Order: sequence, then structure tokens, then C-alpha cells
Amino acid sequence: MPEYTAVPMSATLAADEALARRRRAGERVLPMASGEIGLPVLPALRDRLAAAADENAYGPVPGSEALRTAAAGYWARRGLAVDPGLVVAGPGSKPLLFALLLALGGDVVVPVPSWVSYAAHARLAGARPLPVPIRPGEGGVPDPERLREAVTAARAAGRDPRTVVVTVPDNPTGTVASPGTLRRLAAAARELDLVIVSDEIYGDLYFDTPAPAGSPARHAPERTVVTTGLTKNLAVGGWRTGVARLPDSDTGRALHTRLVSVASQIWSSPPAPVQAAAAYAFGEPPEITERIAAGRRLHGAVARAVAGRFTAAGALLAPVRATCYLYPDFEPLRDRLARTHGVEGGEDLARFLGERHGIGVLPAGAFGEQGQLLRIRAATSRLYGDSDAQRTAALQAPDPLALPWIRQAVEWVGDALSDLTGARPHPHRHSTAPARQF
Amino acid sequence: MPEYTAVPMSATLAADEALARRRRAGERVLPMASGEIGLPVLPALRDRLAAAADENAYGPVPGSEALRTAAAGYWARRGLAVDPGLVVAGPGSKPLLFALLLALGGDVVVPVPSWVSYAAHARLAGARPLPVPIRPGEGGVPDPERLREAVTAARAAGRDPRTVVVTVPDNPTGTVASPGTLRRLAAAARELDLVIVSDEIYGDLYFDTPAPAGSPARHAPERTVVTTGLTKNLAVGGWRTGVARLPDSDTGRALHTRLVSVASQIWSSPPAPVQAAAAYAFGEPPEITERIAAGRRLHGAVARAVAGRFTAAGALLAPVRATCYLYPDFEPLRDRLARTHGVEGGEDLARFLGERHGIGVLPAGAFGEQGQLLRIRAATSRLYGDSDAQRTAALQAPDPLALPWIRQAVEWVGDALSDLTGARPHPHRHSTAPARQF
Repeated sequence: MPEYTAVPMSATLAADEALARRRRAGERVLPMASGEIGLPVLPALRDRLAAAADENAYGPVPGSEALRTAAAGYWARRGLAVDPGLVVAGPGSKPLLFALLLALGGDVVVPVPSWVSYAAHARLAGARPLPVPIRPGEGGVPDPERLREAVTAARAAGRDPRTVVVTVPDNPTGTVASPGTLRRLAAAARELDLVIVSDEIYGDLYFDTPAPAGSPARHAPERTVVTTGLTKNLAVGGWRTGVARLPDSDTGRALHTRLVSVASQIWSSPPAPVQAAAAYAFGEPPEITERIAAGRRLHGAVARAVAGRFTAAGALLAPVRATCYLYPDFEPLRDRLARTHGVEGGEDLARFLGERHGIGVLPAGAFGEQGQLLRIRAATSRLYGDSDAQRTAALQAPDPLALPWIRQAVEWVGDALSDLTGARPHPHRHSTAPARQF
Repeated sequence: MPEYTAVPMSATLAADEALARRRRAGERVLPMASGEIGLPVLPALRDRLAAAADENAYGPVPGSEALRTAAAGYWARRGLAVDPGLVVAGPGSKPLLFALLLALGGDVVVPVPSWVSYAAHARLAGARPLPVPIRPGEGGVPDPERLREAVTAARAAGRDPRTVVVTVPDNPTGTVASPGTLRRLAAAARELDLVIVSDEIYGDLYFDTPAPAGSPARHAPERTVVTTGLTKNLAVGGWRTGVARLPDSDTGRALHTRLVSVASQIWSSPPAPVQAAAAYAFGEPPEITERIAAGRRLHGAVARAVAGRFTAAGALLAPVRATCYLYPDFEPLRDRLARTHGVEGGEDLARFLGERHGIGVLPAGAFGEQGQLLRIRAATSRLYGDSDAQRTAALQAPDPLALPWIRQAVEWVGDALSDLTGARPHPHRHSTAPARQF
């Protein structure tokens, strides 16, 4: 008898809507709560969607052959060749992740910290999330040793974990698990007979190397599902498109049947015009590749500049290598923050930055961490401008930080942190500056 | 500990894909298994989607204010005024129906027969469907007296039914519950404290009267959720767009909070470019109203012509008043069908028509009925032509049955039924006719 499963509103989407309300009320806000990519659609990609506007048939549940073939090519170019028959497209990678948990059954290991929706997905699927901490600096992947212990203990207690979800590169920490950790994770999953669901939506936002970030699918190909989409690399989150790559194994083929059945009952098929545009994008013609590279450069430059402000303020921060997220830890400043501002945990930090400085960030508690930790997640992907003209200029700039609106946003963060740490305690510094709203 | 919940692939989508495979293999098939509307997109509507192709932001989880306001206007014009704040848009009414069951919790009463996905949704939400038969000729609404008995017995047995799903007008029977039945259903739901989820996706396909079909929301406004979309009236199923109208009551407002949370975790927001087009469509400017009316006339004319072939063959059929579905019952021919063709149930009937005549229909078992019943569902919405030119001509024709391709499709059904009933037993009559494929 199912009681209603209480899941919270997605913290990122809730924070975004709260910021939008404040903005409409005339307040100046710096939106760093959600990782929505504040960039316009590449015109060539937009034109593909427009050209497909008369496509009104459902088509196959797992997506068109053109889209699945293009997605298979995208993965093949990243060392993960796959039969298009094992690709399943959906209206976003979020619904695919949820449907995968429904199709897999059993309980689900989630990293701590991890993206706001994995635990909610597990609960909505009738499962219980089994939290396992990451190794320091290697977010998104549960520490393989602690994974072994937790799964063994859970099974001894009568629970039935069958899946471990990982994020490579990681949201919220912006870090990337090392090949060694991925290898050990894969070995542990094999030993424990767990399916790995690897969310690789940030796979193209890995800054310093042309090589892709690692994937557990290299180490445990028979049991790893990979998901991705065009939300981060091409900024079309609002279009809702994602793809899953199922393993070429008996496990993968059985899961394919069940996943397609679940998809047929929940969403029928991905939106047809979006499928046509997504097939073009996953095909990666030169203009798409260039645009993805430009986004990567911009995200890297701005994330690192903002990271500099956090470390200058005395927060701990892992080296910035991927995504558009910073996950600073203010633990070294605990005494001072408590004394000067009564800030004693992640919620206090987020409230201080939000109410006093109009900067929206999320407390670490939104990602499954304990409330007393002085950690927040700050997303830098919406600091690129107020208009499409500014955002396009940011994409094209050799040095985005030389653009006044971006420099101003970085300073806004720096000033707020100075106020927080007492280095320069005057709030509302920006209140007399020209109104700037995102 | 959740075992994997085995749900079948959506029977309509599975049958469609099987027919598509046969067609690709060069076979001639008449696709009457799914109710996909085989008509092109209205050009003005297509243009709205194309013009919104650069909309790439998520926007609010329940959909844009423009879309929710337009949907509220659509309902107001049908006597169901609602605050746009109680409207929730999603990527199809199917995901909304599923999310509603997740948000409501408890077990779910479903009519017998009913659409293939309600029972699957209940199971995926961790609930059990509680089947209650309809009154003859009033499909989509469980017989109110039997609803009382079933819910009372289920509660006595420790189960917790909280919701009853209804379909007005109905799929699969193509019938419309009478106002009296809707009133008694509403009274029973109030007495039993059940929420009514009323799927009104066929609300604009009610043939003979300008008045809308009834809705339980008129009789139990405090507890009725209404869902609809643009899949049937404007033939854009592949776009994936739907809306839910929540009751203006404490129940409705609490449900709204939970539904939006579930939506935020499963699909984030409906596809943004589709939202823009849907806002235009729900606004119902004259060209949209005319197109909906033309579709209604075409569906009515063709459904009735095909119905005539079923009744001429000796099947029982309720008067055709809405949708694009026929639900003939061959019980009067049971002895003859068993003797001449070994046909003893719905599956046998569907197999006979499919394998011997290339006509795809679904057995009543797909809708929760017992296998030995000699009932099938035949959808007539894809008999309008092989090309957009033919389909547009069908929409515009004063007498669609005068068009050769539609007449031929109706004759194809008639000939197959003649073969079935022995009136003219030669199969493959069409095998020498010019190839015609849908």
C-alpha cells in the first residue's frame, strides 16, 4: 500500500524560481544556484529544430534511428562504441535516470554529496537511497572501499542494493574521479553484482585536456549504463533531450526491454522536433564541435576566476577541472563566521549570501551532506551576461574576464566573500551600482 | 525493498512498431491498433513552434504563465473556469497522469475496460489497480454502484484506494458516460473520499453537439483533476504536451505542491518551444477552432463508416458518438467464429485480422478485459491517407468517404470481416490491388 512518497521540489529548480521572483520584484540577484547554462542556442541548431516543426508522429519509443545512430557515433568518438539498438533517448537525461531506477528495481547507492535528484528518484521508484561518501577531491563516485562495506552491511540487514549511481565529471563538486578510483569502483561493482549508472552529462565540460574524462563503462562495460544529453554542452536544457547507452551484455539487453517498457508507459517518445535537432547535434559537425569547445573555454575561465575569490577568502576548494560548479568548504573559517555573522552551517552560508548580497547558492545539505558543514555549491554558468549579445560576446572573447559584465559579477562574489570573512565588511556594496539583473 | 515492477510495453505503441516493421518489410498493412491521429500539423501551429526554437531555458516547472493562462481559458470556454495557478503542464498528459498517481499515493480504481496505461501507471507508482466494470454503453466510468462495493470491500481487506481514474469521452469504447452516471460517480467519490482523475484528452472529439461532453469536475469540483492535451484535437502527439487542471480546494492545493515536486524531479519542465506553440493552440484563435472542428467531422464520418461494416458483419457496437475508436463485440458470432476459424477470444480475432488481412487492431485484453471475450478495439484515425496531401484533402472534403483511398480502407475492413464471418471467404483480396501502405 503506497503512502505518498514525499520528495522535495528539486532544490536547483526551486532556488531558480525564488531568484526569478526576486528579480521580477526589482531586486538585483546573481543566480548561482542552478547549473542552467546561460548561453543562447547555436543558430544552426535552432534552425534544425525549426525545420522539424512539422514532425508530429510519436515514432519509436526509444527515439528515432537517426538520433540513436548519432548518439552512438558521439559515444564511439569518445571510446565507447555502442550498437544504436542499445541507445534509448528520452525527454531529458533526468527522466531516463528515473526510469532506469524503476527498470532496475532494488535499492540504490548514491554518492555523498551528489546531485539533488538521484535520492528523490530512488524514493519515487519505491527504493531507498544508500548514501556512501566520496573520496576527497574525487566527487561523484562513492569510495570503492566504503561501497563494499555499505553494500555488504545493507545486504546483511535484508536490503537489496542493485545499482550504484555515479557522476563523472561531478555535480556538485566540479571534480573528476581518477582512473584508479573508477577502476576500483568498477571492480567493486562487479564483485557486488551492482549495475553502475554513470551520469556523464558534464562529459564535454572537462577543461584542460582533449581526452574525455574517464567512464566506468571502460572498466566494467558489461554492467555500466551511461547517460548524457545536450543540456550542458549545448545549453538546450529547456528542450528536454537525453540519451542512455546500455551495456552490450545479457544484463544490458534485459534492461533495454524493461527500460523501453517503462518509457512507453511514462513518456511515449521524446518530442519529435527535438529529436531531429538532437540527431544533428550528436552528429557533431564542425560548427557543433567548435561551439562545444567555446563553451568549455568560457566555463573554465569563469569558474576559475570565481574559484580564486573563494580561495582568497580562505575557503578550501579542490582544483577546478570540469563542469561549472564550485564546492567551497569554509571549515577553516568556522570560528570567525560563527562569531561575526552567526553562520554555523551550509544553510546559514547560503542565507547570508542570498539575503545580504543577492547571490543565490545552494547549501551542501541539498546534496545529501550534513547541515553543519560549512559547504555550498556555487554555479558559475549564468554569469555570462544579461542579453544574448553579451552572452555571445562572452563565448567569443579570448579573455572573457576582460568583459566588464563578467568582471563585475566576479567582483560581486569577491565583495560578498570579503563581507563574510570580515576583510571588508560593507554589505550592499552594489546597491548604488547600475542595476544589473540576470 | 522494491522488486522490479513488471509493466508491459504500451500495447498501442508496441502494436504500432510491429506494424511499422511489417510495412518496412514491404507488407501492406492497415494501422488500426493505435489512436495516433494521422493528420498533418496545422501550418500556423507548426510556425509557432518554429518561431520558438531559440527558447532554451527551463522556465517554471509547471509550465510558462502564458501556457497555463491559455489552458485555463480553454477550460473556461468549456464551463470549467480555473485559476492558472492550479494548471500544471507536462510533456504529455501521460506523464502527468503517472505523476498524479505518484503524488496521490494509495491504490487506484480503474474502469474495465480502460486505456492501456492507467493500470501500468498504478503499478509503477507502487499501487495496485482496483478494476471496476463500466455500465454498458458508458465506457470510461466505473459503474458507481460497483465502485462503492469494490472500494468498501478493498478497504475492509486493508487496502487503501484513494483515486478513481475515468475517461470522458472514452478510450477504448468510443462511448460517453451520461450526465446521470457522471453525477452518481461524483457522489460515490465524495462519499468514499476518492479523488477523481478525469482524462479528457478526447474532449474535443465529441461528434454531434457543440456542447462539450460532461466532466465529473462539474459534479465534484472539489476533488476532480482534469487532464487533456493537443494530441487528439490537433494531432501533435509527437510533440509531447499536456495539461492538468487541479481542483480549487485544499485537496487541490496540497496536490499541486506534491505534483510540482514530482514533476521537478522527473521531467523538470515541458519542452520550451512546444510550450510556446501549445500556449497559442490553447488560446483557440479561429484557425485553431476551425481545424479542431474539421478533425471532429472527419473522425466522425470515418468512424461511423467503419462501424457500419462491423455491425453489418453481425458484431455488437454501441452508437458511435466520440473519439476515433470502435469496440465491437463478436459474441453473437461466437459459434461460427470458433467453428470456421478457431477464433475463440480477442487475441484470436486480432491475430486473424492482423495475419490474414494486415489489419492491426488490439484485443480487449489489452484494456483489462478477459481474454475469452470476442472484443477488439479498432482505431480509425489513421485511415486518412498515405501523404500529407491526401490527409489534408480528407480534412477538407465535404464527404471524406467519397475519396478513393478512404473508401478503399473502409472496404478493406469490410472484406476482412466478410472473410471472418464467412459471408465472402476469400482472404488476401487486396493482394493484387495496387500497394497501399500507411
